[in-house]
Amino acid sequence: MNSDDILKILKQVEDGKLASHAAVERLKHLPFEDIGFAKVDHHRALRQGYAEVVFGKGKTPQQVAEIVRAMVRHKDARQNILVTRADAKTFAAVKRVRRDAKFHPLSGVITIERSKEITGKGTILVVSAGTSDIPVAEEALLTARMMGNRAEQLYDVGVAGIHRLLEHRGMLTDARVIVCTAGMEGALPSVVGGLVAVPVIAVPTSTGYGASLGGVAALLGMLNSCASNVTVVNIDNGFGAACVASCINRL
Amino acid sequence: MNSDDILKILKQVEDGKLASHAAVERLKHLPFEDIGFAKVDHHRALRQGYAEVVFGKGKTPQQVAEIVRAMVRHKDARQNILVTRADAKTFAAVKRVRRDAKFHPLSGVITIERSKEITGKGTILVVSAGTSDIPVAEEALLTARMMGNRAEQLYDVGVAGIHRLLEHRGMLTDARVIVCTAGMEGALPSVVGGLVAVPVIAVPTSTGYGASLGGVAALLGMLNSCASNVTVVNIDNGFGAACVASCINRL
Amino acid sequence: MNSDDILKILKQVEDGKLASHAAVERLKHLPFEDIGFAKVDHHRALRQGYAEVVFGKGKTPQQVAEIVRAMVRHKDARQNILVTRADAKTFAAVKRVRRDAKFHPLSGVITIERSKEITGKGTILVVSAGTSDIPVAEEALLTARMMGNRAEQLYDVGVAGIHRLLEHRGMLTDARVIVCTAGMEGALPSVVGGLVAVPVIAVPTSTGYGASLGGVAALLGMLNSCASNVTVVNIDNGFGAACVASCINRL
Amino acid sequence: MNSDDILKILKQVEDGKLASHAAVERLKHLPFEDIGFAKVDHHRALRQGYAEVVFGKGKTPQQVAEIVRAMVRHKDARQNILVTRADAKTFAAVKRVRRDAKFHPLSGVITIERSKEITGKGTILVVSAGTSDIPVAEEALLTARMMGNRAEQLYDVGVAGIHRLLEHRGMLTDARVIVCTAGMEGALPSVVGGLVAVPVIAVPTSTGYGASLGGVAALLGMLNSCASNVTVVNIDNGFGAACVASCINRL
Amino acid sequence: MNSDDILKILKQVEDGKLASHAAVERLKHLPFEDIGFAKVDHHRALRQGYAEVVFGKGKTPQQVAEIVRAMVRHKDARQNILVTRADAKTFAAVKRVRRDAKFHPLSGVITIERSKEITGKGTILVVSAGTSDIPVAEEALLTARMMGNRAEQLYDVGVAGIHRLLEHRGMLTDARVIVCTAGMEGALPSVVGGLVAVPVIAVPTSTGYGASLGGVAALLGMLNSCASNVTVVNIDNGFGAACVASCINRL
Amino acid sequence: MNSDDILKILKQVEDGKLASHAAVERLKHLPFEDIGFAKVDHHRALRQGYAEVVFGKGKTPQQVAEIVRAMVRHKDARQNILVTRADAKTFAAVKRVRRDAKFHPLSGVITIERSKEITGKGTILVVSAGTSDIPVAEEALLTARMMGNRAEQLYDVGVAGIHRLLEHRGMLTDARVIVCTAGMEGALPSVVGGLVAVPVIAVPTSTGYGASLGGVAALLGMLNSCASNVTVVNIDNGFGAACVASCINRL
Amino acid sequence: MNSDDILKILKQVEDGKLASHAAVERLKHLPFEDIGFAKVDHHRALRQGYAEVVFGKGKTPQQVAEIVRAMVRHKDARQNILVTRADAKTFAAVKRVRRDAKFHPLSGVITIERSKEITGKGTILVVSAGTSDIPVAEEALLTARMMGNRAEQLYDVGVAGIHRLLEHRGMLTDARVIVCTAGMEGALPSVVGGLVAVPVIAVPTSTGYGASLGGVAALLGMLNSCASNVTVVNIDNGFGAACVASCINRL
Amino acid sequence: MNSDDILKILKQVEDGKLASHAAVERLKHLPFEDIGFAKVDHHRALRQGYAEVVFGKGKTPQQVAEIVRAMVRHKDARQNILVTRADAKTFAAVKRVRRDAKFHPLSGVITIERSKEITGKGTILVVSAGTSDIPVAEEALLTARMMGNRAEQLYDVGVAGIHRLLEHRGMLTDARVIVCTAGMEGALPSVVGGLVAVPVIAVPTSTGYGASLGGVAALLGMLNSCASNVTVVNIDNGFGAACVASCINRL
Repeated sequence: MNSDDILKILKQVEDGKLASHAAVERLKHLPFEDIGFAKVDHHRALRQGYAEVVFGKGKTPQQVAEIVRAMVRHKDARQNILVTRADAKTFAAVKRVRRDAKFHPLSGVITIERSKEITGKGTILVVSAGTSDIPVAEEALLTARMMGNRAEQLYDVGVAGIHRLLEHRGMLTDARVIVCTAGMEGALPSVVGGLVAVPVIAVPTSTGYGASLGGVAALLGMLNSCASNVTVVNIDNGFGAACVASCINRL
Repeated sequence: MNSDDILKILKQVEDGKLASHAAVERLKHLPFEDIGFAKVDHHRALRQGYAEVVFGKGKTPQQVAEIVRAMVRHKDARQNILVTRADAKTFAAVKRVRRDAKFHPLSGVITIERSKEITGKGTILVVSAGTSDIPVAEEALLTARMMGNRAEQLYDVGVAGIHRLLEHRGMLTDARVIVCTAGMEGALPSVVGGLVAVPVIAVPTSTGYGASLGGVAALLGMLNSCASNVTVVNIDNGFGAACVASCINRL
Repeated sequence: MNSDDILKILKQVEDGKLASHAAVERLKHLPFEDIGFAKVDHHRALRQGYAEVVFGKGKTPQQVAEIVRAMVRHKDARQNILVTRADAKTFAAVKRVRRDAKFHPLSGVITIERSKEITGKGTILVVSAGTSDIPVAEEALLTARMMGNRAEQLYDVGVAGIHRLLEHRGMLTDARVIVCTAGMEGALPSVVGGLVAVPVIAVPTSTGYGASLGGVAALLGMLNSCASNVTVVNIDNGFGAACVASCINRL
Repeated sequence: MNSDDILKILKQVEDGKLASHAAVERLKHLPFEDIGFAKVDHHRALRQGYAEVVFGKGKTPQQVAEIVRAMVRHKDARQNILVTRADAKTFAAVKRVRRDAKFHPLSGVITIERSKEITGKGTILVVSAGTSDIPVAEEALLTARMMGNRAEQLYDVGVAGIHRLLEHRGMLTDARVIVCTAGMEGALPSVVGGLVAVPVIAVPTSTGYGASLGGVAALLGMLNSCASNVTVVNIDNGFGAACVASCINRL
Repeated sequence: MNSDDILKILKQVEDGKLASHAAVERLKHLPFEDIGFAKVDHHRALRQGYAEVVFGKGKTPQQVAEIVRAMVRHKDARQNILVTRADAKTFAAVKRVRRDAKFHPLSGVITIERSKEITGKGTILVVSAGTSDIPVAEEALLTARMMGNRAEQLYDVGVAGIHRLLEHRGMLTDARVIVCTAGMEGALPSVVGGLVAVPVIAVPTSTGYGASLGGVAALLGMLNSCASNVTVVNIDNGFGAACVASCINRL
Repeated sequence: MNSDDILKILKQVEDGKLASHAAVERLKHLPFEDIGFAKVDHHRALRQGYAEVVFGKGKTPQQVAEIVRAMVRHKDARQNILVTRADAKTFAAVKRVRRDAKFHPLSGVITIERSKEITGKGTILVVSAGTSDIPVAEEALLTARMMGNRAEQLYDVGVAGIHRLLEHRGMLTDARVIVCTAGMEGALPSVVGGLVAVPVIAVPTSTGYGASLGGVAALLGMLNSCASNVTVVNIDNGFGAACVASCINRL
Repeated sequence: MNSDDILKILKQVEDGKLASHAAVERLKHLPFEDIGFAKVDHHRALRQGYAEVVFGKGKTPQQVAEIVRAMVRHKDARQNILVTRADAKTFAAVKRVRRDAKFHPLSGVITIERSKEITGKGTILVVSAGTSDIPVAEEALLTARMMGNRAEQLYDVGVAGIHRLLEHRGMLTDARVIVCTAGMEGALPSVVGGLVAVPVIAVPTSTGYGASLGGVAALLGMLNSCASNVTVVNIDNGFGAACVASCINRL
Repeated sequence: MNSDDILKILKQVEDGKLASHAAVERLKHLPFEDIGFAKVDHHRALRQGYAEVVFGKGKTPQQVAEIVRAMVRHKDARQNILVTRADAKTFAAVKRVRRDAKFHPLSGVITIERSKEITGKGTILVVSAGTSDIPVAEEALLTARMMGNRAEQLYDVGVAGIHRLLEHRGMLTDARVIVCTAGMEGALPSVVGGLVAVPVIAVPTSTGYGASLGGVAALLGMLNSCASNVTVVNIDNGFGAACVASCINRL
């Protein structure tokens, strides 16, 4: 609803094609749909991610299924659908709504693929420091793909064995955007950032124990990164990192 | 020094054009220069930011001036030079090295402009929530410009007077990347992120008192942003935000 | 027991109508009832909320039921009864004491309605940012109603889709007091506060993960709100927010 | 700018009294004034506080004086002007703009009284726990008065000498709203809240040392208050507490 | 093993009554017993608490039972035995070792009473703010009694209903030492401390939610108490508070 | 003002010796004196510490001097006077009020000795871990003495040289109460507590740097002490520790 | 892969014994093995610990078993294998891969002994403060042994009974490296460090409750140790402590 | 004072060569010297560091000078003397005691060299990430040298330019112990640790701003290091790191 739209409505009123009260009504028909407990924002998909997304955590299986139902109701919509932080129960409920839904148990992601169009210009590379970071990395990978990007993975290349990372410098330099997940000391994005000239989206993971403070240590490490092409998203937020990466990759 | 370079050196050795001990030497001549207390990394400018940068805080005026001297020694180098977190004393020392250095007291930035080339594809918009955030916003603005970007500003549009922001939606939608600085509750990036489809780099500022905890409240707010195109850099890190924005804007 | 009451007792003693030792006794018959492990304060209902309230968390079903029994024992008492943070087991125990008790599973609230009198002067509007905040919002809504207020709801109007909120400005401006629940970055109260001239009681929720730190991020955000009509209660304290709102609405 | 205003503008367009491009212009003439580094929001005074306010901290004396100059430029404006967190230098700059400005050094408040109208319905009582809390209490007191309220003070009635507080129960019960400042353990609002039926706005102060953590201990104490009519604002935010109290007192 | 003991051993050596190597041996026979995974310190009971104590948390039922077995092996020992933080399983294991063990499920304390001697000079009063604090209060009460003290209880006298506490000032002034448990804002010890002249041992409890931070809010509140006769022990440490109270009560 | 006093006043009313309105007046003449910005509580001295105390921090020299003047006005009062956290300027102001005031610059304490009576039954021993803890230890020592106790010192006996402490076990065992100050890891009270059977009041000091977090590390260490006769006061609160110790020593 | 190795490869190329593309290949055959979700680094065992290690937490039993299978595939490898943070399920999976695997349920360690060679020069002593620290201590003990060291244990010698520790000074002075585990206040390493001249590796444990903050109190205590031969590893990281100790013991 | 010493004294008593009271006296003549406010522990130098050390922070110049005077009083003592955290004033006071004292202003260290003996077996390498870490690195370097070690430096090799570090792998592999200082994200020790087989002592520095939280981010990063040969000391504790390194280097 940018200012052009407003001008257009005003024009119609000016030209006598639209009554003022009708204009007020029209402003109300904003592109979101109210299903009682949630307002499904179909336009957000158009505006931001070329996919419709449900954050599964804290919602009942029924709530998730209802939201998905509202999403698939629009027959002509071709956006992919992504449910994050879901479990087997939620998947069962979603599958009843849509048969071709797929569940990725490692990351708890449900995907419904309705389009295979690639809209991202380059490759998004998802790098992870250790095997325990893989769930978050996979959430990022699936999100990036559902949002219309080519996405590759490079796992288990933590900084304490720097040769493992340097071995794959080719993959790093081939990427247009890098998502870098790491727990514990969260040092990987700094090293990766120093090796490339493209943006690095750092995702701290809650991997670790004790002084990792549930991922806060990694988060702080990344925020203090001495590489100047690194930005940070919330702990375990693989989805968010891929959103930003996708948003950059479409530029 | 990518694998092609290594292959090239190896080739020369294989062809008998380079002795093995000389090859080892060459590997040592990496593109940074050792001036005793610091290693000036000329290549970083080439790789990452089209500008050479000195972080002034915690360095003596003399140290900063020495680093700048090493940077300007390369006559044919055309990168702009940026000193952040500097004060009047440091500026005096830098000015002795280079006459055309300029000081921006609000943000503590010193700039030496050696090139006016625009390498960024679109406009970087720097948005700030309140007047107290302006020093950080200015650091971002100057950094973006010194790195070869068109950069605009939109100040004092905090969320408690949402009409001030909505009034300027045109500027928001015209930007290719947005840097958004805010202190206190750090809510601005979420609102801005919801209004645009481009990446938003959020910079928490240490503006505020009491429960703002020196910017930690704003930082946490931004990390938890419900807008999915928002990433975050360190508190008061206007420089870093502009680096990432610039890096994205060259894609 | 204000100073008038004390003067009255002293008067009676002075007039020889009350023996001094009896006066001491009378002072002891303060309006609370000791049921062993708890002192039921019947007067608090009169003084503060027009409802008797039990905080269910950390009490056994039997303890809750006993307290409710003491509350309903006073036949002529007409205050509504509210049990917060209860579960199905506690509800079962309470239902044995009082047949007409109702359970609201989403928020874990038990209500026993003994009066439908409206004592609040205007409408309390309960606003929530996301679907995950609804349990807290519902606790506030039910509390406000049981305390004799007209209360309305406006859900899922988070700041990343600001048009959803602006669409309902009418509801906002019609309210006499607003309770505003939000998790994650907790930015909603600032925006709402900037749109209205009435008090906004902000309730951070523990919605979120990672850097939301169990609601602390939202709490800090709200405490740093740049809107000057916002005050804050504890994380997830929908009950407390409605108490204050009700207390204001009776002024 | 509520929906009535928009309807009115639309009506004028419909009636041919206003061209559509002029309507767009009018929407742009929102009631704030851009003075370069700040947007003076004259309407906020009308909407929220019956006073125009400048937060002095982090602004130079010149910036504060400029903002005050913009405020007093509107000859017919009768709102009082309040500058908080100011010092003697800022006062000197403001005094040059407006002769009748007054400085309150204990709290760092500057006041310019342009109206003596009382718009609040009852009395706002400002209570403080210790002598060290007085600066914050005075900021609240002056703010309340400049916003058109009768305001009284009750100082040095901390909970470790509970008889001092109980002695003044009359003042407590006479108030329509109470602002309660306390540092250290922040227990006073709970006790005060239990003694009255009106809203209590709690202000933690940074009084104390060691485990007071700059007021965080008092803040946490107040957020956990067992009195259900207590809400909380930021540490040392006497101004904000009085704003809310004033906003309630006009209901 | 004070210096007198050492002198005595030295004397015996000097007088030829003890060989030097035997003296070394004797020094080794310190009054603790090694049962493999733990060193039972029988003397600590003598020195500090007139009771033998096992901290049950983090020990298996078998480990606790073994330690109790070592304690009861000394037939002539008459100290009471106390196991804290135990559950039904641990109790079952202890009961097999000693039939007359008693379990107090509210506080998770197991007691084995072997002596009814009262060695404390006055009464220890255990005060609690709310019903949720009772488990901790009961741990303190039982500990105080098992350590040979008269101990009384005063429960549910939180500061938001200050009249409930003032009603029982007699109990407060009759006590020689007071243990005061409170969660949430932890304000009770300050009020109690202001009403009496004896030491008050404050025990924060983990009662509460959100900003209570698992008892940290109450802990900080108590550490900042403005009453000068208040000291603090760890969160939920009813046992420790009673130990100190008992230690004071024997002076 | 215990219940006996109230009964006495009631009796007088009953016997017609006191009019009811006069009784109300009398209740108002509580033993504190209002000097405008502070209420001097003469009774607290009687009730709790046998000394009148002013906390100097956050008060101007003039305020401190005024409070001291109110204290010394009562000619027949014989309590010692103690000002803590004072500096040379405050001392100068106090000296003008009372010639025999003494300043102890290491701890910032001002003492006015009006009585040499010893009311404590035993010796209070003040132990400190390192030389940096001495200011806090001295504050405790002077407070203990001004409150009528014999007090001794044992300094620089930190746990990393355990022989230094063990060498002085005699002093430890001779004390009736021990105040133990330590910064850094705060381990001394645990070791001392294990060596004696009397109460140990632990005072964390803000000595240290980095991870000492301004004394929080020592505070946490002491709260987790494995010695069961240890309680804790606020960081650097030597005064409070001595108050409690004195309060115990008079039992 | 030190510089000698690189020189050797370069030499072979120079001598025509190795083609340049083959040299690149060789550099790629770094001594780690890619098994899909993890890169098994066989050389790390050679370089650092004379044992191959799997961190079990956050890996499925199948993942652990697969990694172990890759480790045992190399028939001629003689390093011991260690799985930490495992449970019975993981052990069952590992046992299927290798019959002679042993499970240590107290510490959750699985060991596969393939070599009994002692490569450490002296004895590593593992000291623990309380019985609750034993799981962490045992993890350290087993790790030290599997890495080829003589390792002894000294348990339950916490500082509140200092005589228990002093009794065993012989064991302390006989050790070449000491690993010291302690929870609660974490004071033991300071005392131990003061008694010996060898390095002390301190391991905070998550033993405790309330203000122990999950081991953070102990961690901070150890970081602030006043003994200068103490270093610290992460909370509960018995494995890491033993690694460092082993690494020192081989010097 | 090990057990042999005690046995020797006991022997002398047994043989009648030493009276028991004299034996007690002798035990009192422990090898530390009491100079009133501090106990100079000459033996610690012998036991632990081959240098006598004064921690200058929090001590007056006079106190430092007095302690140094006590140290140099022993003519035959040949240990080097080190004062850390000193400033020019303290140096002036020390220089009056001892002419050949040297001041190192960058790190605030004073050295008095009385011995050039090298007792460490290998080289201690001090590595620093950035130029701002140099003060801490220099403190470590000087400490290591004064304690009789060969010590080298490798500065400005932070992980964002990993080639700078890899360039100097020779220095890393030549060291027997490595001290590694880094601020910001504190990632350097993990990378260094992965490259070598010797112990790495990590020193977080307070370099940085915002989310570096005064070095806590670096500290947490290092504690969570994924390299298993890394241990950690307190923030900015270059001295402590060198002590441990020296202690290891003498093994």
